[in-house]
Amino acid sequence: MTAGVAESLLAALRARLGQEWVWTGADAEPFLTDQRRLLHGRALAVVRPADAEEVAAVLRLCRAAGVPVVPQGGNTGLMGGATPDASGQAVLLSLGRLNRVLAVDTDNDTITVQAGCVLANVQEAASQANRLFPLSLGSEGSCTLGGNLSTNAGGTQVLRYGNARDLTLGLEVVTAEGEIWNGLRGLRKDNTGYSLRDLYIGSEGTLGVITAATLKLYPLPAGQDSAFVAFASIESALAFLSLARQRLGAALTAFELIGQAVLALVARHVPEQPQPLPALAQPWYALLETSGDDSGAALLQLAQDALEAGVVADAAVAQSLQQASAFWRLRDEAIGVAQARDGGNVKHDISVPISRVPMFLQNTAQALQALQPGLRPMAFGHLGDGNLHYNVSHDPGQPVARLFELEERIHDLVHAQAHAQGGSISAEHGIGQFKRDALPRFKSPLELALMRRIKQALDPLNLMNPGKVL
Amino acid sequence: MTAGVAESLLAALRARLGQEWVWTGADAEPFLTDQRRLLHGRALAVVRPADAEEVAAVLRLCRAAGVPVVPQGGNTGLMGGATPDASGQAVLLSLGRLNRVLAVDTDNDTITVQAGCVLANVQEAASQANRLFPLSLGSEGSCTLGGNLSTNAGGTQVLRYGNARDLTLGLEVVTAEGEIWNGLRGLRKDNTGYSLRDLYIGSEGTLGVITAATLKLYPLPAGQDSAFVAFASIESALAFLSLARQRLGAALTAFELIGQAVLALVARHVPEQPQPLPALAQPWYALLETSGDDSGAALLQLAQDALEAGVVADAAVAQSLQQASAFWRLRDEAIGVAQARDGGNVKHDISVPISRVPMFLQNTAQALQALQPGLRPMAFGHLGDGNLHYNVSHDPGQPVARLFELEERIHDLVHAQAHAQGGSISAEHGIGQFKRDALPRFKSPLELALMRRIKQALDPLNLMNPGKVL
Repeated sequence: MTAGVAESLLAALRARLGQEWVWTGADAEPFLTDQRRLLHGRALAVVRPADAEEVAAVLRLCRAAGVPVVPQGGNTGLMGGATPDASGQAVLLSLGRLNRVLAVDTDNDTITVQAGCVLANVQEAASQANRLFPLSLGSEGSCTLGGNLSTNAGGTQVLRYGNARDLTLGLEVVTAEGEIWNGLRGLRKDNTGYSLRDLYIGSEGTLGVITAATLKLYPLPAGQDSAFVAFASIESALAFLSLARQRLGAALTAFELIGQAVLALVARHVPEQPQPLPALAQPWYALLETSGDDSGAALLQLAQDALEAGVVADAAVAQSLQQASAFWRLRDEAIGVAQARDGGNVKHDISVPISRVPMFLQNTAQALQALQPGLRPMAFGHLGDGNLHYNVSHDPGQPVARLFELEERIHDLVHAQAHAQGGSISAEHGIGQFKRDALPRFKSPLELALMRRIKQALDPLNLMNPGKVL
Repeated sequence: MTAGVAESLLAALRARLGQEWVWTGADAEPFLTDQRRLLHGRALAVVRPADAEEVAAVLRLCRAAGVPVVPQGGNTGLMGGATPDASGQAVLLSLGRLNRVLAVDTDNDTITVQAGCVLANVQEAASQANRLFPLSLGSEGSCTLGGNLSTNAGGTQVLRYGNARDLTLGLEVVTAEGEIWNGLRGLRKDNTGYSLRDLYIGSEGTLGVITAATLKLYPLPAGQDSAFVAFASIESALAFLSLARQRLGAALTAFELIGQAVLALVARHVPEQPQPLPALAQPWYALLETSGDDSGAALLQLAQDALEAGVVADAAVAQSLQQASAFWRLRDEAIGVAQARDGGNVKHDISVPISRVPMFLQNTAQALQALQPGLRPMAFGHLGDGNLHYNVSHDPGQPVARLFELEERIHDLVHAQAHAQGGSISAEHGIGQFKRDALPRFKSPLELALMRRIKQALDPLNLMNPGKVL
């Protein structure tokens, strides 16, 4: 790209969006670094369109100039999918101004929102209509729906309500050519051709830009109850999950596994966090949530029966909202804080069939010890979805830096073990930049070729978020 | 295609599959007519491969000869998607021999089956493992899983468990080039690129051939209860649906709307069918099903409260399994028999947002009366999904033949009314041959163009079920 092309594109963008919505220099900086501050990209400009028409205009102008576009929502992604490369050749397209709730339809149990709506605001709008929008994740205060859909976000309620894909009925998308596809259908059944919706969801902005979505709503649960349970073995945890699904059905809304080592790390680094079962005498723990009218009674009965049957080694059912909050603070906040205070770790987001979790845990721990004795697996995650955040902490007998020297080898090892169990190297975070080069080792050449044919069909000039996913 | 090409292809197919699995003449006939006997196709041969490798070999041989392939499961589709055209140029690929259950994993709550498995056999295999496979539809005794996935089949349990797409975790697919993609992943979370799974599901064999699937299982419900309810207006039916969802949550597993005229038709033509509420004094009725431990008590309480509040005009809760069966026989069998005995009708499978159902019903009835006074709308269907089988029966003052003279105009009218309410012309039956020409009137040129680009990308020679969908 010549300086002249760049200048005339910037001028055209300013003319179309208004001077004040085309940012360069210091204004642009916060958009060019990912949340974990691992990547520092550059861009021709950060543009902030107001609506789908302006997004389409940006895409047409960039296309005419041959300039790539990197879409960005709340910039909370963990895989670098929304950060441009260092060439400075791309335009960063921020969806943040498309932040309106367009419609709530309580008879249809749907909400239609623009892509830049912050997830917590969507939850709030649903709640005000006496409905639940169940997508829930750590960054919900700043992540946006468009980002959630681009990465097919998960979170803690997937067990009951599914991931972002499962919660979406319709999309509005701006294509690579800058045309607007209005697929904002609020239909639970529509078998009229290929599911473009499902193709754009999870494509991380590489096929087009999602600008709005029609999402499913659910009744607000009458109440919620939580329990913290200890297991003598991972096999017991699986047996209890199966029993809980059988007994509680759809009332079981979360089942989070936490390894003993993780709780010990919390006890050491976050002593102010109460431990539901302070002895830490068992190798595995789980935090359960049930939702519904009398789900608390059913949860208590389940815990008692499982204790008697020896499936569960110990159990604490939260006796108050305050106590339940403390249980969840442990899961949602204290684990992260403890890991950071411990010096950081090498993170993963793998999934395997639930039945393969024990074999995955055993083999991976062995392989890590073979790589370097003393490495500490910190396993926790959504057991009900087979999704573990299998993080690896440093050998306490070595400097922390030694861990990060091994980072790539640890990633490869953990991913290979997940793959060996029929698993995935990215359960809910996507591929972005960080896992792009790993993908060919774990997907068949045929699957990658099919993906490339689709990319070529929908973005033949390779201007949509190039260098991500594929 | 010359006779020589055809002969050498047949010889190659016989050599690969064995003489006995390449059928022509009278043996082939049952595969060349659709279930409703509206279409009579021809084919070079019906081939019956034994496994995915043989399917792949068939596709490679046909591709080399430039011969189109029409995949077929149980041949129960309603849109002609599995019937070849009359040219006799295509090979009909019957999946019926791929009928094995490959694996049941109760810890992962998944079942893996070949595409030719009859749906009822999948249900039975799940049940033997003390699990539920919830897909359920009228033709379950003969339709196959592959056909269910090709058309993204729905049925009566979609309200709770979703349609065929929602029940599928992984697929094995033979591509147009005759390569086997093994995507049989039993993962509830896997965000590693484009969702090929969702692209093949619902594509009616036009992008490749589904040969196996890994499907979700659920706990067997402890019990089921049914109620038959009458409403003074369609608005009351919607209000009751909303209340039922709020009060019963996931325990509400079906909500089937039935119009008074439909019940009257049953009373007249199928007098042996018991009527749960014999007076037929209200314009709308619904058949509800709840599943779970004490769902019966909750259903009874809901019906009583709704009666007191005037939301419901009358209600009968089934007092025995026998009575519940009779309720469901009315819905699943008697309505079809009554329609046939009445002389047949013009059938539809539309969906609209649930909130738009009243407007759709009112406007469509008016438009039909304007077309020909005396036409009788027979509306029933899955209100919980916004999916109505809005069938139109003949004016009793006219011969039945007059109805079918108007068939195309009635289709256009009903489809236009569904479209005007943001709806779909095919909720759960697909497009096939019968709705292909209507599609461009109700989908934007952009959406059709995107679909064609995908078709071109994955089947560039247009040999996969040509003439269907697009």
